Amino acid sequence: MTLRVGVIGTGIMGADHANTLHRMVSGAEVAVVADVDLARAQGVADGMPGVRVAGDGFSLIADDSVDAVIIASHDSTHATLALAAVRAGKPVLCEKPLAPTLAECVEVVRAEQGAVGAAGVPLISLGFMRRFDPGYVQLKQALAEGICGAPLLIHNISRGVSSAPGATDESSVTGSAIHEFDVLPWLLGSPIIEVSWQAPRGSTLAKGFRDPHLMVLRTADGVLSTLEVFLNAHYGYDVRCEIVGEHGTLALTEPARLITDVNRGRTVGYPADWRPRFADAYRLELQAWVDALTTGAPTPLATARDGLIAGAVAEAVIRSMHEGGRVVPVDVPVV
Amino acid sequence: MTLRVGVIGTGIMGADHANTLHRMVSGAEVAVVADVDLARAQGVADGMPGVRVAGDGFSLIADDSVDAVIIASHDSTHATLALAAVRAGKPVLCEKPLAPTLAECVEVVRAEQGAVGAAGVPLISLGFMRRFDPGYVQLKQALAEGICGAPLLIHNISRGVSSAPGATDESSVTGSAIHEFDVLPWLLGSPIIEVSWQAPRGSTLAKGFRDPHLMVLRTADGVLSTLEVFLNAHYGYDVRCEIVGEHGTLALTEPARLITDVNRGRTVGYPADWRPRFADAYRLELQAWVDALTTGAPTPLATARDGLIAGAVAEAVIRSMHEGGRVVPVDVPVV
Amino acid sequence: MTLRVGVIGTGIMGADHANTLHRMVSGAEVAVVADVDLARAQGVADGMPGVRVAGDGFSLIADDSVDAVIIASHDSTHATLALAAVRAGKPVLCEKPLAPTLAECVEVVRAEQGAVGAAGVPLISLGFMRRFDPGYVQLKQALAEGICGAPLLIHNISRGVSSAPGATDESSVTGSAIHEFDVLPWLLGSPIIEVSWQAPRGSTLAKGFRDPHLMVLRTADGVLSTLEVFLNAHYGYDVRCEIVGEHGTLALTEPARLITDVNRGRTVGYPADWRPRFADAYRLELQAWVDALTTGAPTPLATARDGLIAGAVAEAVIRSMHEGGRVVPVDVPVV
Amino acid sequence: MTLRVGVIGTGIMGADHANTLHRMVSGAEVAVVADVDLARAQGVADGMPGVRVAGDGFSLIADDSVDAVIIASHDSTHATLALAAVRAGKPVLCEKPLAPTLAECVEVVRAEQGAVGAAGVPLISLGFMRRFDPGYVQLKQALAEGICGAPLLIHNISRGVSSAPGATDESSVTGSAIHEFDVLPWLLGSPIIEVSWQAPRGSTLAKGFRDPHLMVLRTADGVLSTLEVFLNAHYGYDVRCEIVGEHGTLALTEPARLITDVNRGRTVGYPADWRPRFADAYRLELQAWVDALTTGAPTPLATARDGLIAGAVAEAVIRSMHEGGRVVPVDVPVV
Repeated sequence: MTLRVGVIGTGIMGADHANTLHRMVSGAEVAVVADVDLARAQGVADGMPGVRVAGDGFSLIADDSVDAVIIASHDSTHATLALAAVRAGKPVLCEKPLAPTLAECVEVVRAEQGAVGAAGVPLISLGFMRRFDPGYVQLKQALAEGICGAPLLIHNISRGVSSAPGATDESSVTGSAIHEFDVLPWLLGSPIIEVSWQAPRGSTLAKGFRDPHLMVLRTADGVLSTLEVFLNAHYGYDVRCEIVGEHGTLALTEPARLITDVNRGRTVGYPADWRPRFADAYRLELQAWVDALTTGAPTPLATARDGLIAGAVAEAVIRSMHEGGRVVPVDVPVV
Repeated sequence: MTLRVGVIGTGIMGADHANTLHRMVSGAEVAVVADVDLARAQGVADGMPGVRVAGDGFSLIADDSVDAVIIASHDSTHATLALAAVRAGKPVLCEKPLAPTLAECVEVVRAEQGAVGAAGVPLISLGFMRRFDPGYVQLKQALAEGICGAPLLIHNISRGVSSAPGATDESSVTGSAIHEFDVLPWLLGSPIIEVSWQAPRGSTLAKGFRDPHLMVLRTADGVLSTLEVFLNAHYGYDVRCEIVGEHGTLALTEPARLITDVNRGRTVGYPADWRPRFADAYRLELQAWVDALTTGAPTPLATARDGLIAGAVAEAVIRSMHEGGRVVPVDVPVV
Repeated sequence: MTLRVGVIGTGIMGADHANTLHRMVSGAEVAVVADVDLARAQGVADGMPGVRVAGDGFSLIADDSVDAVIIASHDSTHATLALAAVRAGKPVLCEKPLAPTLAECVEVVRAEQGAVGAAGVPLISLGFMRRFDPGYVQLKQALAEGICGAPLLIHNISRGVSSAPGATDESSVTGSAIHEFDVLPWLLGSPIIEVSWQAPRGSTLAKGFRDPHLMVLRTADGVLSTLEVFLNAHYGYDVRCEIVGEHGTLALTEPARLITDVNRGRTVGYPADWRPRFADAYRLELQAWVDALTTGAPTPLATARDGLIAGAVAEAVIRSMHEGGRVVPVDVPVV
Repeated sequence: MTLRVGVIGTGIMGADHANTLHRMVSGAEVAVVADVDLARAQGVADGMPGVRVAGDGFSLIADDSVDAVIIASHDSTHATLALAAVRAGKPVLCEKPLAPTLAECVEVVRAEQGAVGAAGVPLISLGFMRRFDPGYVQLKQALAEGICGAPLLIHNISRGVSSAPGATDESSVTGSAIHEFDVLPWLLGSPIIEVSWQAPRGSTLAKGFRDPHLMVLRTADGVLSTLEVFLNAHYGYDVRCEIVGEHGTLALTEPARLITDVNRGRTVGYPADWRPRFADAYRLELQAWVDALTTGAPTPLATARDGLIAGAVAEAVIRSMHEGGRVVPVDVPVV
């Protein structure tokens, strides 16, 4: 059986998902791509024989030739589209965040409860792809094997070359830091319970908001995590994570393949954005989602509830930001 | 259209190919696996619903439900099976070497000439997977972009943990060094024309043959390449390549993801064998082969003739080995 | 002219200073070593022909054959001995901290004011040797050259193998973190004005105090610095510093010389304590002190006032520690 | 006692030695510097109060205020000056090579035989400073500890930015490769007995001679060493050595202190020439020479005979160069 997938949104992320599904994932094919910008959708479909185009996500969801849906449209549309897919009984892989506000997150989680897809898999999966990054997977495994002993501190760094237009202090948290809000509890098996936020003087390259941010997160197990988010770091896309344990440390290393010796220097490269860095993670995430839907294979895909929890952490961080950097407890709504 | 593939040989390499095709390649499925050891074949098939088992490669080739064939059985069977597939008009991806002797290589290349598959792709492709390794691909691209200037020297190292039973001085060349015999001309766009062979005192961990080997290879463009092949290097599987050019150097770096700080040391790991190191290369090679057969997409897959050329280099190296390390010209048979 | 130096205290640090002065510093010789444990002093003197032994620091200071004094005895004795040396008009290189309490620091700074040695050098220099570490020096220079652009964040890590007996939450700040309290303003040219302190759950290997600590320091220029101090990090002695600027980052790298490939890993070593890591820094600091005293050469040696300022930062951090981690302003006494 | 040293030759190397001795070596002082270019000598002396200038090496050797002599003048003058110092009974540290021809080396070794300085140290020491480089020292120690098991292969690389005017195929061997001719036997405790030489097409940046060179050296213990010497490698000064043993490998790593993240790359720097790379080695070599002369401390300083042996290896390599790259045995003259 080949899973016929519809992809909503053909911006950078949606086009990337469609392309990966089409070229590198076993057991699935792209059936339809949708975008309010039809020409953009057509541009993506052109490279994929047999793929049709739709002008909006709702008609794609309703299309009988679509078995499952990927939502990669604007953040503000995620919740509404996810609800539509749940009503249609179609499995969804929704890009993060589940929704920009906690209230919408709650609504989606409520709607999905009880609804389970044909293969016993939750109807909604959330695109926290770091859970599939080979580096993070090795980190989690090495931690579980006790190689560094009991974890005490985690240092996280998330840097990009330049922020997208319209970035705000808040979107830096809900759109970028949110990856760590999911991956830290996943690594530790312990929820984030307390957060605080500070910022140094901002980069003059960041327009209209403060950049970088510095957060400190405490999980229920007593581990403290630092998190630098710097969207305009300029030099490259660079994600780091070091776990400091009682007997040693575990850290991601940039997965470079090439060393260049030129101009008095020995250099390994950084990518310009997240796609090369997390190409494996996206591919493996899509494969896991397809496998889960076609064979019922168990999977570490994030759920709608994981999205709600990460959203609650984001909300607490934003409160600390607005309240002078004080320590704020995380309050996850009861659903 | 889904390409139905038969895999001949279910040892380490064949099982790995079947598994990769089944789980991670778009547009293909494993239809049949064959092995003279039926139980071993069954073991591989068990994990893949719908896959059938055959007791020999010839019946697999004749099977109507098989569109294309992967040959991963013992080296000594490659030529005979490839010839059978060519006669049946079925495309083949044959593991290296094309054949252990040059005479057999010639026979296969002759038989294939003129025979072209449905998609305009040569009937025989050869499993020189390094051409698909992201590291080697970046190396070739950076070289083409002139980043290190005109190449002058290349240093190659190929180390494994321990040799397979039955390894000989000659099989170290035909089975291991042969990867560099293909990849160096592919990198440089220039054939190897002259070789010499030496060996230091051997490792006491190598039983029944000399290990390591040291070769010096000259390509027609005047570049000299050193090649250390050390099958019992003990510490890990480690493949290196550094291109020294007029303005700088380009080198592969071990594609590790995790750094561990324990016991007074900062460590990145080496794999125990070639599979983790070249997992991406094998997957991308299989995907390229499937794409070429189903869509006619152009591909850098090695051909039977590439296998013949590499075999001719191996023969020259073995002659140097038997003749006191003298410089021996490479003589590629005219076919 | 050869400077005749007396070394007070022959514990690890004092013995190291005496040894370095005797073997590797130009223009100076060790004249006398003093220790309340005379046998320990004699053990150090035995390796150095002509060096005499004294039973207390005060008689060493009074000794006519001593031109200048190094104080490397217990922290609690620093202030009293420094005052004695100032009264004797003899230049002092005092190990950090200047004194364990801010009140004592003030007293020493007051006593020294106006007193200047023969060569126009302040009578008291303080052993913040990181200012002489080639790594920190390169960091400061690259920052000044604008290579990373304007600094925004600094991440500092200071880890040791195991804490000395008697370590406390407070001594972790006054004895270890104090190095960063001096080196950060020195790097940035801007004083630390605000601090906060937190701790994760502690390592079970740390007895009687919390370990690790996490501090956030704000300098007057708006730069935020994180500082992890972990005395029982177990795996090795490891000091890191990364400056994040508008255009890139600058970071120290472990100055290893040897890579070992064994047991499936590629490893560079960490030292067991600070001496190998900062051997160059101590040697260059001693040489700079001797040069300054014998030739009046200008020097970045820290002064008594730098010690007072670092002590004021330590006091603010300890207040944050005792007051629930709140942000505490740094208050440097007016002297 | 302070050793009064005369430095003959105030070019790059001589000026560097004088400076190091003056500023960073314990127990010695520069008394006189000599150069046929008096102005150049004066320029060096100007920075060092009390240092006098001489117009030739012979008068410096005869000067009563000179206890010991450093020879850093042109290679062609080494032998004559060394002989003069031996006749004067004054200890010498002679820059490599001992002499450009083997005949001269023999003459010097003969003259020195039996002549031993006051402290029981051979009158002539040779400036093979790599024996004092902390990296090479750690390499030798780790090898002796058996960390990589019995050595089998060694890969050596010696690259510079650009060759000095007048470089020839031969001077590349006698002036650069000669460092490895000394350090390999020192590492292994086994002499080089057989050599061969090849070259790829040359760099167009090398004027008037072939560059790079590739040598293969066999020591009596059966170890094979590869050696690339590339004087115009352009990108930086870069010396590498990897020892491949039965259980693993040991390798030098560039002793960098700073990592820079800018422009999509993570970079550590290479120096522009050998001085920063081997600054520690030169300092420690000078200190060891002074210590040996003043206290009779045993030392691994190379002797005149070591210089003769390295010269014999160079001669064999040059013969291979002139005789089609054939394997040439090393013939050390009996003295």
